[in-house]
Amino acid sequence: MAYETAAPMLPAPSGDTLAKFAAIVGEKYAVSDADAQGQEPFLTEWRRLYKGRTPLILRPGSTEEVSRILALAHETGTAIVPQGGNTGLTGAQIPFQHEVLVSLGRMNRIRSRDPRGNSMVVEAGVTLAAAQKAAEEIDRLFPLSIGSEGSCQIGGNLATNAGGLQVLAYGNARAQVLGLEVVLADGRVWDGLRALRKDNTGYDLRDLFIGSEGTLGIITAAVLRVLPRPKSKATAFVGFTALEQAARFFDLALEMSAGELTAFELMPRIGMEFVLRHAPGSRDPLGTVFPWYALIEVASQREDGAAETAEALLTRGVETELVADAALAASLQQGRDFWHMREAMSEVQLHEGGSIKSDVSVPVADLPEFLRRATDAVLAIMPDCRPVPFGHYGDGNIHFNVSQPVGMDKAAFLARWDDFTGAINAIVLEFGGSISAEHGIGRMKRELLPRVKSPVEMEMMRAIKRAIDPKGILNPGKLL
Amino acid sequence: MAYETAAPMLPAPSGDTLAKFAAIVGEKYAVSDADAQGQEPFLTEWRRLYKGRTPLILRPGSTEEVSRILALAHETGTAIVPQGGNTGLTGAQIPFQHEVLVSLGRMNRIRSRDPRGNSMVVEAGVTLAAAQKAAEEIDRLFPLSIGSEGSCQIGGNLATNAGGLQVLAYGNARAQVLGLEVVLADGRVWDGLRALRKDNTGYDLRDLFIGSEGTLGIITAAVLRVLPRPKSKATAFVGFTALEQAARFFDLALEMSAGELTAFELMPRIGMEFVLRHAPGSRDPLGTVFPWYALIEVASQREDGAAETAEALLTRGVETELVADAALAASLQQGRDFWHMREAMSEVQLHEGGSIKSDVSVPVADLPEFLRRATDAVLAIMPDCRPVPFGHYGDGNIHFNVSQPVGMDKAAFLARWDDFTGAINAIVLEFGGSISAEHGIGRMKRELLPRVKSPVEMEMMRAIKRAIDPKGILNPGKLL
Repeated sequence: MAYETAAPMLPAPSGDTLAKFAAIVGEKYAVSDADAQGQEPFLTEWRRLYKGRTPLILRPGSTEEVSRILALAHETGTAIVPQGGNTGLTGAQIPFQHEVLVSLGRMNRIRSRDPRGNSMVVEAGVTLAAAQKAAEEIDRLFPLSIGSEGSCQIGGNLATNAGGLQVLAYGNARAQVLGLEVVLADGRVWDGLRALRKDNTGYDLRDLFIGSEGTLGIITAAVLRVLPRPKSKATAFVGFTALEQAARFFDLALEMSAGELTAFELMPRIGMEFVLRHAPGSRDPLGTVFPWYALIEVASQREDGAAETAEALLTRGVETELVADAALAASLQQGRDFWHMREAMSEVQLHEGGSIKSDVSVPVADLPEFLRRATDAVLAIMPDCRPVPFGHYGDGNIHFNVSQPVGMDKAAFLARWDDFTGAINAIVLEFGGSISAEHGIGRMKRELLPRVKSPVEMEMMRAIKRAIDPKGILNPGKLL
Repeated sequence: MAYETAAPMLPAPSGDTLAKFAAIVGEKYAVSDADAQGQEPFLTEWRRLYKGRTPLILRPGSTEEVSRILALAHETGTAIVPQGGNTGLTGAQIPFQHEVLVSLGRMNRIRSRDPRGNSMVVEAGVTLAAAQKAAEEIDRLFPLSIGSEGSCQIGGNLATNAGGLQVLAYGNARAQVLGLEVVLADGRVWDGLRALRKDNTGYDLRDLFIGSEGTLGIITAAVLRVLPRPKSKATAFVGFTALEQAARFFDLALEMSAGELTAFELMPRIGMEFVLRHAPGSRDPLGTVFPWYALIEVASQREDGAAETAEALLTRGVETELVADAALAASLQQGRDFWHMREAMSEVQLHEGGSIKSDVSVPVADLPEFLRRATDAVLAIMPDCRPVPFGHYGDGNIHFNVSQPVGMDKAAFLARWDDFTGAINAIVLEFGGSISAEHGIGRMKRELLPRVKSPVEMEMMRAIKRAIDPKGILNPGKLL
């Protein structure tokens, strides 16, 4: 393996090349920069952290069109940025110079569904919500679930190995995939649409493409595994007097209900206050104030099984003095209300001024110590900043966000972004953790990557990139 | 990606080079071909299908020694074959010319165990049984379970992505791994020993090494995930009057107990007869003869939960006329007796003369149709051959073995190996299946691989091989 850095940006495509690209998808589905309004939804990231530009957006309608686009890109040395629902949080889906944007949204067919085989074949542009619904219609569960599920697309979910709210029981996006169809950097199509539970015939190419953020190929379709739908579900909101109690209650929950425990989401009091203040219709599920809360969900194949398990768990939690107070949802609506508290927690931070984001993980058992140390570290930088660490406790994955001090200038606070994330990441690395547990690297953390990975790991990744995309046309300047 | 075939065999190492290799591990742990008896256990595969040869066997005791071995191999262009417990079934672990054999068995330390974090760090040479025991000692389950667990080693299990008896609930070897330590082809060490549940920072190198059969690097240690031990277990032996009943009962079992169903193993009557005839102490768990049987296991975190689930499942199976007869193990010993019937089924085939093996998978719902067609196909080749298809029904993975006709010459029967497996594989491919569901490719199926994979997939694998092992020193002539 040679020691090389990522490929430099490729030259801008000529007008002639752009015309050839447009001809592949047809005029109706080629949006040039002459149409700024038409391009707008593809170039603005929802938090407005990134604003992209591109000479041309292509909206192919078939794998064959994607194949022809990449063959032409390969031939002409044109940089390509693939895009799903444009909900990514690290800028991976945004073109920044003259890359041609390929939006997969028109490829939104459910190709087939097999309830007995517990699988379905969907195209990249199917939204996550539509995939969930397609599974429900055949009485099955597609367990991937994330906040943006109404607009994010399966292709993007797989390209970024999305995580979300049910990873604890069902795994990341990676775990939901049996097979892939991928268009390679030179336009060739890899038909890896296998629906097998076991297949030991060669290298695991599937998992190489999953999480590669569009830098190795464009995923155009996938065989997704689906599951029998749970027969019962129970949702509980739990208050803790200290973080260590939450941690020990999580151990207990795993012990008593591993396999049925589908969520263990941590929330701090300040996050609850933000939600109560800004999210319409929100209300505190518990009568008393606690420093920490968890939303817990249990699912079971047994009728009434989930409620039994959750009740037994809460009872034992109270007996062992880990749980200070708890509410078990008495209705589906109340369960949704509990989830609303958790799901609103990202968005409400916008209403409290500047918010510095992070998405880190450490080994689960180290979370309490990590949270204490990271809290100390950000308060040392700015004593009146407001840490809002919340998220997927059961996966060891916390969004350690920091809201600005009340009354501070927002821009002045956000100017300290790297100071805060740098301090948090330094502690993450001491625990052998990840600086991007679920959001990926994209453009946001690209420069950070060589600082947290060993040279040998960076070189392996670059060697693979060169082997699979030798001209470096796929999503240049992202990830690597 | 260029169109190339696998690297040709490298030249034989000189006496001087061999002396340098031996000096790395010390004389005591370097076994030359002058010591044929010392080499014997490393060169003979247990079914005696392969007999290898090598000028030198090295038994390193540390990652650092493995690193120095591969650095020297890289420098001198010496071919290396890594070996774990020498239990592989496709010859991947056997040197056939003058490759130097690197046996990992001395690296057998449990480096650390973290019961709260549900993980442990073990070295490559730890046997699977020792890893299971290490987990048990901290009240945890390491769920990988295969017939050879007393002698196979974790390094080999991961290099081949081993499957086995509990994949249905817990996944293949791949699913048990959080992180890896790998020595690369040039001796550099990749420290990927992360204990994280979520980490989206770059390409999935871990899964690339898992299942690569020693052709991309030598796995020296791994962070394995462990689980809370089930509180209860139930084992049932079920008889079916037809294959379709077994298939529909599997659907029912998933529906009623997904997550708790840990095994659904299919057995044909002839396999039962072989076991009853040749396995000491075996006895038919059911009073009546059926054409098909399944061994079913349920595990639960609830005390008595497994028995409840299994009883409910069997009751419904009888009510819906899918189950003709069933026995639920009344004691741990009876459960072990049931498993003995299943586990003996491989070995007893040796006593019935020649046995042609296969290890295939198809989408689970297609299994009945596949089994019918494959049975017809082998009977068309030789009307009095005895098909013995058995195995991991729940994973879609069947060992479609064929025993010779009674009284036929064994060698004459085995001479038809390719005719039988060719006919079976042709049907497998029609169902989009795999010709090697869990045993891998190794040497046995290397020539077959390009016939069942698309050129684009073969080229991607070769491009990755060249990128990670540019001199082609790691396990040449295997897999690719």
